[in-house]
Amino acid sequence: MEPSNLSRRRMLLSTGGVMALAGTASLTPLSAALAQEKAKTQAKALPAYASWKHLDSLIVHSANTIETKRSAFGSGLITPLDRLFVRNNVAPPSEQIVADPDAWVLSIKGVKNPKDMTVAELKRLGLVAVPMVLQCSGNGRAYFPEKPSGTKWTVGAAGCIVFSGVPIKAVLEATGGMEAGAKFMTGTGGEDIPEGLDPNTIMVERSLPLEAIDDAILAWEINGQPIPLAHGGPLRLIVPGYTGVNNVKYIKQLAFSKDQSAASIQQNSYRMTPMGEKTNVNQESVWEMPVKSWITSPNGESGEDLKAGLVQIQGLAFGGMSAAKEVEVSVDGGKNWVKANFVGPDLGKYAWRQFVVGMELKPGQYEIASRATSEAGTVQPEERVANSHGYLNNSWRDHMLPVTVA
Amino acid sequence: MEPSNLSRRRMLLSTGGVMALAGTASLTPLSAALAQEKAKTQAKALPAYASWKHLDSLIVHSANTIETKRSAFGSGLITPLDRLFVRNNVAPPSEQIVADPDAWVLSIKGVKNPKDMTVAELKRLGLVAVPMVLQCSGNGRAYFPEKPSGTKWTVGAAGCIVFSGVPIKAVLEATGGMEAGAKFMTGTGGEDIPEGLDPNTIMVERSLPLEAIDDAILAWEINGQPIPLAHGGPLRLIVPGYTGVNNVKYIKQLAFSKDQSAASIQQNSYRMTPMGEKTNVNQESVWEMPVKSWITSPNGESGEDLKAGLVQIQGLAFGGMSAAKEVEVSVDGGKNWVKANFVGPDLGKYAWRQFVVGMELKPGQYEIASRATSEAGTVQPEERVANSHGYLNNSWRDHMLPVTVA
Repeated sequence: MEPSNLSRRRMLLSTGGVMALAGTASLTPLSAALAQEKAKTQAKALPAYASWKHLDSLIVHSANTIETKRSAFGSGLITPLDRLFVRNNVAPPSEQIVADPDAWVLSIKGVKNPKDMTVAELKRLGLVAVPMVLQCSGNGRAYFPEKPSGTKWTVGAAGCIVFSGVPIKAVLEATGGMEAGAKFMTGTGGEDIPEGLDPNTIMVERSLPLEAIDDAILAWEINGQPIPLAHGGPLRLIVPGYTGVNNVKYIKQLAFSKDQSAASIQQNSYRMTPMGEKTNVNQESVWEMPVKSWITSPNGESGEDLKAGLVQIQGLAFGGMSAAKEVEVSVDGGKNWVKANFVGPDLGKYAWRQFVVGMELKPGQYEIASRATSEAGTVQPEERVANSHGYLNNSWRDHMLPVTVA
Repeated sequence: MEPSNLSRRRMLLSTGGVMALAGTASLTPLSAALAQEKAKTQAKALPAYASWKHLDSLIVHSANTIETKRSAFGSGLITPLDRLFVRNNVAPPSEQIVADPDAWVLSIKGVKNPKDMTVAELKRLGLVAVPMVLQCSGNGRAYFPEKPSGTKWTVGAAGCIVFSGVPIKAVLEATGGMEAGAKFMTGTGGEDIPEGLDPNTIMVERSLPLEAIDDAILAWEINGQPIPLAHGGPLRLIVPGYTGVNNVKYIKQLAFSKDQSAASIQQNSYRMTPMGEKTNVNQESVWEMPVKSWITSPNGESGEDLKAGLVQIQGLAFGGMSAAKEVEVSVDGGKNWVKANFVGPDLGKYAWRQFVVGMELKPGQYEIASRATSEAGTVQPEERVANSHGYLNNSWRDHMLPVTVA
């Protein structure tokens, strides 16, 4: 990997910081602390590969973890790309891989006629467009009281976008179908593996159950444009309803196999590990997303108290593997609930619905929560499922917001 | 208006050009011509208020007319903002009007309780989100053989976006309803009127029939973000199904009145004027959009011939005031037609549908056309309606593309 602009910027910043401190004898401890704090804030600039994003709408946790602010989801059904979260398990490959997307090659294995296909060839096989929630497995980790390690996402490691590409079923048809006995579909990411490292320790290779094939696609567009590097272009495996990590970026190999990947990210990560236990391959893999919702407005991010009167309480809801059927809102911490209305059209079972409910609020303290029910009949639970890595938090109580009305 | 970055850039460019020519005695006529051509291309840079747009996806006709390339629509259902066309009748107001969108004031008149409301106050009245085609009245003017004056748009003065805001009906409810006898809803744009000019000669004030109220909204968001100046923020009148000009930008007054606006843009413009006649108020106003479709891929924009074999022919279709129900595709100039499939979910009657059909094409010459039918049963016609300003071109033959398959 080339050093990114960010690393360069950080280097310059820290060097500059040291020089400034050394050359200013009269610097008080307080202003030194402020300078350090400022340097820290500036280091949270967008990394080079995501420099085109809208910084004011985002929380930059690190060069590989960027979250959408609760106030920045808006009410437009689809999340604009420049507001969409980013999560990379490994630093992305060179920007050069998206220079000529049609030339990218995918190896297809574990089929009757294994072959290499370019994106240009895949584009000739068919086209579908899937509006869907893309959500990091650890979204909501910040609310786990046990403070598991990993990025402290609140609500913003999620977005609803449209991926366009070819159905995996059409690719299987073009390659003679799966070999007998296959039990998993495995996607391998195109990240650079540093020489001398055992690839299994670092590569992003995820295996999925065969039922994931039904709605899965190989995508070359996101929101109507070629997928940028930040979101896994030139080609990404898209498995609607499954958490982000399963949607393998810069996919270079698609294989159908009897066994799950031997990669550490499959064997020893992204599993629902009970508190206090070690992660192992027998624990449930983090695949499907559960029903979930949260409030987006009011959100308290302006720092000002809300004015009393009629307030339009807004939020987002999705069912995971089926559509959100209903959303209720509470302003008293879950004692009483009222039904919210959906905003805009239904974009299909994998998309989220935006909701709104108008309520008269008098001056006082409120705890605003939302609770979604899926078409499958599952109600968003009050409590999260305890697990040592902080995955799949869909507790309505955890996502509740305190709001002061003046 | 402040001079824009573009004017400054143009000035620098032309000065620089002259200097380069003067200082280079050995410059040949050909290289001088090339330099001039290059300067011309560079002068077609984006204006300052739209500098955030994706230039490679756009054709910049002028600082107030920017078109999406046929190849840049993609298959993502919703047009990303940085690819969306721009059309201003008058230069936009200062960027300062979008600095604090909630503070923008709208005067509401011709109602029982006329009042001024801020955007913050409007946001408390309700929320809807409307996916819809926004299309300039003159989109397709380039195909009129009579070469009417006005921008020579081909297909790209159109996009499908999501506007969010409050229904006009809720605003009427909050202001006591229309005064008796009202026949028109009139929106007035917030453009700066130069001193000494009769406002009627320049102001963007459009009147609409009362049936437009049903689905009309006052919008503060486009595609989930505050409306930028280029698209009429902080507040825009949105009349789904009506051509672009009727969706008044930076709206400062909404009035219900017995008469149409006296502004020239209402009286003497945007009317279906028969060839050779003068425009007058008795001619049909350009309001509702007719059924229309066009091919987006293949589009010949790469300059290379298409390779023989299975090809996914793609395009866009909308019904105007009702949804597109069906689209047919022809590769032989309209002799034979096959039914195309819609891509992705139906976003409601005012949105467009993307369509695709896979066809085996042998080497040869093709003329690829599409023809949409609306839910109302109207079939996209072969010929345009002749009119002297080149409005509402929905002829399938005009939008047909010649394609060479090698």
